[in-house]
Amino acid sequence: MARLVMKFGGTSVADIDRIRNVAHHVKREVDAGHEVAVVVSAMSGKTNELVAWCRTASPLHDAREYDAVVASGEQVTSGLLAITLEGIGVNARSWQGWQIPILTDNVHGSARIADIDGGELIKRFKERKEVAVVSGFQGVHKETGRITTLGRGGSDTSAVAIAAAIKADRCDIYTDVDGVYTTDPRVVPRARRLDRVAFEEMLELASLGAKVLQVRSVELGMVHKVPIFVRSSFAKPEDIDPYGTPPGTLICNEEDIVEQQVVTGIAFSKDEAQISVRHVPDKPGVAAAIFGPLAHASITVDMIVQNVSADGATTDLTFTVPAGDYRRATDVLEKAKGTIGFKRIDGETEVAKVSVIGIGMRSHAGVAADAFKALAGRGVNIRAITTSEIKFSVLIDAAYTELAVRTLHSLYGLDQ
Amino acid sequence: MARLVMKFGGTSVADIDRIRNVAHHVKREVDAGHEVAVVVSAMSGKTNELVAWCRTASPLHDAREYDAVVASGEQVTSGLLAITLEGIGVNARSWQGWQIPILTDNVHGSARIADIDGGELIKRFKERKEVAVVSGFQGVHKETGRITTLGRGGSDTSAVAIAAAIKADRCDIYTDVDGVYTTDPRVVPRARRLDRVAFEEMLELASLGAKVLQVRSVELGMVHKVPIFVRSSFAKPEDIDPYGTPPGTLICNEEDIVEQQVVTGIAFSKDEAQISVRHVPDKPGVAAAIFGPLAHASITVDMIVQNVSADGATTDLTFTVPAGDYRRATDVLEKAKGTIGFKRIDGETEVAKVSVIGIGMRSHAGVAADAFKALAGRGVNIRAITTSEIKFSVLIDAAYTELAVRTLHSLYGLDQ
Repeated sequence: MARLVMKFGGTSVADIDRIRNVAHHVKREVDAGHEVAVVVSAMSGKTNELVAWCRTASPLHDAREYDAVVASGEQVTSGLLAITLEGIGVNARSWQGWQIPILTDNVHGSARIADIDGGELIKRFKERKEVAVVSGFQGVHKETGRITTLGRGGSDTSAVAIAAAIKADRCDIYTDVDGVYTTDPRVVPRARRLDRVAFEEMLELASLGAKVLQVRSVELGMVHKVPIFVRSSFAKPEDIDPYGTPPGTLICNEEDIVEQQVVTGIAFSKDEAQISVRHVPDKPGVAAAIFGPLAHASITVDMIVQNVSADGATTDLTFTVPAGDYRRATDVLEKAKGTIGFKRIDGETEVAKVSVIGIGMRSHAGVAADAFKALAGRGVNIRAITTSEIKFSVLIDAAYTELAVRTLHSLYGLDQ
Repeated sequence: MARLVMKFGGTSVADIDRIRNVAHHVKREVDAGHEVAVVVSAMSGKTNELVAWCRTASPLHDAREYDAVVASGEQVTSGLLAITLEGIGVNARSWQGWQIPILTDNVHGSARIADIDGGELIKRFKERKEVAVVSGFQGVHKETGRITTLGRGGSDTSAVAIAAAIKADRCDIYTDVDGVYTTDPRVVPRARRLDRVAFEEMLELASLGAKVLQVRSVELGMVHKVPIFVRSSFAKPEDIDPYGTPPGTLICNEEDIVEQQVVTGIAFSKDEAQISVRHVPDKPGVAAAIFGPLAHASITVDMIVQNVSADGATTDLTFTVPAGDYRRATDVLEKAKGTIGFKRIDGETEVAKVSVIGIGMRSHAGVAADAFKALAGRGVNIRAITTSEIKFSVLIDAAYTELAVRTLHSLYGLDQ
C-alpha cells in the first residue's frame, strides 16, 4: 500500500469522456490498495476563455478578481471528477484551494504556496477510504481569504505541494508524453526515454525547454523529497498492470539513481537573442549599469559572457534575452547609453542555445571539451559558452541547431 | 443617500457587453451617492451547461459535488463585473458565498439561508466606498464548509437576503420585464403595470404563474420588511434619472399602499391536471390515504375539493397536480387502490386554473360571486373552486383560459 498523488492536466480532462478515462486510472490505483489524492487542471481551453473575458472586461484588471474568475475552471473539473468517481463506485470528494486550505502569499496571478494542512485528507483516507479530488492551480491568501492562483502550469506545483503535505510516496504527473527524453524526439528520432533523472538535472532540462512540467514543481519536489513520476494519461487504464512498473520517468534524488550517466540529456532553445555591448569601460559597476535597467524592465537575461579586457580600458559584454524581448532590451540599453558609456550594440536574433546536462559531469573532466571538438568537426561555430556544475551551454547560429543536437546526442552515447 | 441591493439575472450578464451595461447601471447609483451591493447570476446558458455535464458524468450524482460545479458560474460573473466596474472607475470587489459568508443548511441543490453577516460589507461601504459584487445562488454549509446552492432562481433569494443582512433600503430586481402586471400582457394587451403590490399579493401572483421573481425571495422580503423593486435591465443606464422615479413595481407592505384596489391581478396556469377520485369511503383518514402516497412521491397537490357526501357513505375527491406529474400521480393512486378503497379515477389534463388576487377582497363581499356570474355569462364552465382570504381560483377547460382572464380583467376594472 502506498500513498499517491495523481495529477491530470487540461487535455486529460477536456470533456466528460476523458474525465471518465481519468476516473478509471484513479480506480486502478484505489483497487490496488493505494491512498489517492488527485489534482486536476481546468478543461483545456477553459482557462484561455476565462482569461480572454477578463481582458475584454478591462485591459488593466485587478489580479484578485482575475484569480476569482479563472480559478472557477478547476472547480468545475474537480466536482465533475468526484461525481464520475462516485458513479463507478469510488468514494471521492472535491476540494477547493480554500477548503483544504492551500494557503498562499498574496501575489495574485502567480502566488506561492505558504502552507497546506494535509491532516483532514489523511484522516479521510484512513476513515472513509475517500479519494481527495483537489482543484489544482488555486489557493487562498492566508490573511484576506481571497482566491489566488499559482500562474500558468500551476497545477503541477499544486500536485507536488499536496504530495509533500500528505507525505505521499510519489507524485504521478499524467501528461501527453510518456516521460522525459534524452532530447526532443522530433529532432532526434533515436532519443530515448529516461527511466530516472535527478531533480537537479530535471531543473536544467525543464528550464531549458523540455516542456514536460513546471520548473517550480521540480524545485518543490527536490526540497520536500517527493519523487515525481512523469507518465502518459493516454495509456488505457485497463492496459496498465497496477503491480508492474509502468512506462515513465521518475524524477528523484541523485542517490536513488544507480547507474548515473555522465550526460543525461541535451536541451535546446531557439527562443533566444544575442546582444553584445561593445567597448564598455572596464570598471566596477558597469555590469550593474547594464543589467539593472533590463531587470527593471522585467527582461530575463540568460547566458552572460564577459571577456577579460585586452586593453585594460574597455571590454565587450555578451548576453542572451528571450527573442520576444530583443527589441525592448536594445531600446532600454540605448536609453541608458549615457550612464553605461558603451560604443555600440551588436545583436543577433537567429541564434540557439544548446545545453548538455548531466550530474556525472561533476566528476568527469573533459566532457565539454569533447563537445567543442565534435561541433568544430561538423563546422558548427560557437558564439558563446557558459558552464555550471552539471551543465554547459553553447550559443550557436539557429540554422545549426538540429545538427548540433544530433551530434552531441550521439557523442555522449544517448542514442537508442 | 440610500443603501441598495441591485440584482441582475443571467440574460442581463450574458456577455461582456451586457456586463458593461450592468456596470453602468451600478455606476449611476453610486454616482447618486448610494451604497450598493450587486447580486449576479451566472451568464445565461452557463448553469444549464454545467448541470448537463454533471448529469453526463453520472445520472445519480452527489448533490454536494453538483453544487461545487454549478456555483462556479456565478463566481465567474461576479469577478468579471468587479473587473468591469473598476475599469470605469468604481471601487468594487467580488464576494463568493463562502467569503461573506452566506451560511446555509446542508440541503445541497436547494439549500436555505441560515445566516448572513453583513458587517464587513457595511464597513467597506463606509471606509472605501466599495461596491460589493456578490455571487448569487450560492452559499456555504455552516458546519462542513462545503459549497451549497439555493436552487433555480436562487439569486433573487440571495439578493433579498443580502438586503436584509445589510439593512438595505430597497432591493432592486433587474429583469427582462419592467414590472409586475395586472395579468400577462400577451393575453390581455390592456394589462397595466402595477406601481405597488403587497407582499402577500405578490406571493399569490408569483406562485400562480407570474414568473417575475422567485416565491422564496418574496417571502423573505415580507419577513424582513425589505421592499423589492422589479424593474427593467434593458433600459439604458444613461436614460434613467437617478433622482426620479424609475418605471417598475414596488413590492412592499400592505400599509405602504395608499389606494388599495379590491382586485390587484389575475393569474393563470395551464400547467395543471385534474384528478377526481370517485366513490371513496366517507370516513376519517381517507384524505390522508390519498395524499400521503402522492406526497411521498414528491407530487405537489394544489386545489383540493371534497364535497359533502350525498349518501353519507361515499364521496368524490377532486384535486389538481402539475400536468407533468399526471401520469405518475394516477399510477401512485392505482397502486394504493386497496388501501384507499375508491371505485375509479377520472382525470383531465386539458384544464387551467385562473386566480383572482387582491388584499382588498378581505373587506369586500361578493367579489367571487361577481366572477362566477360573469364567467357564466360567457359560457365558461367552472369545474372546481377554491378560495382563500386574498384570492380565489377557478378550474376551467383550458380552451377558455384567455376568454376567462380577459373577462375577469375587465370585470374588476384592471384594463388600462
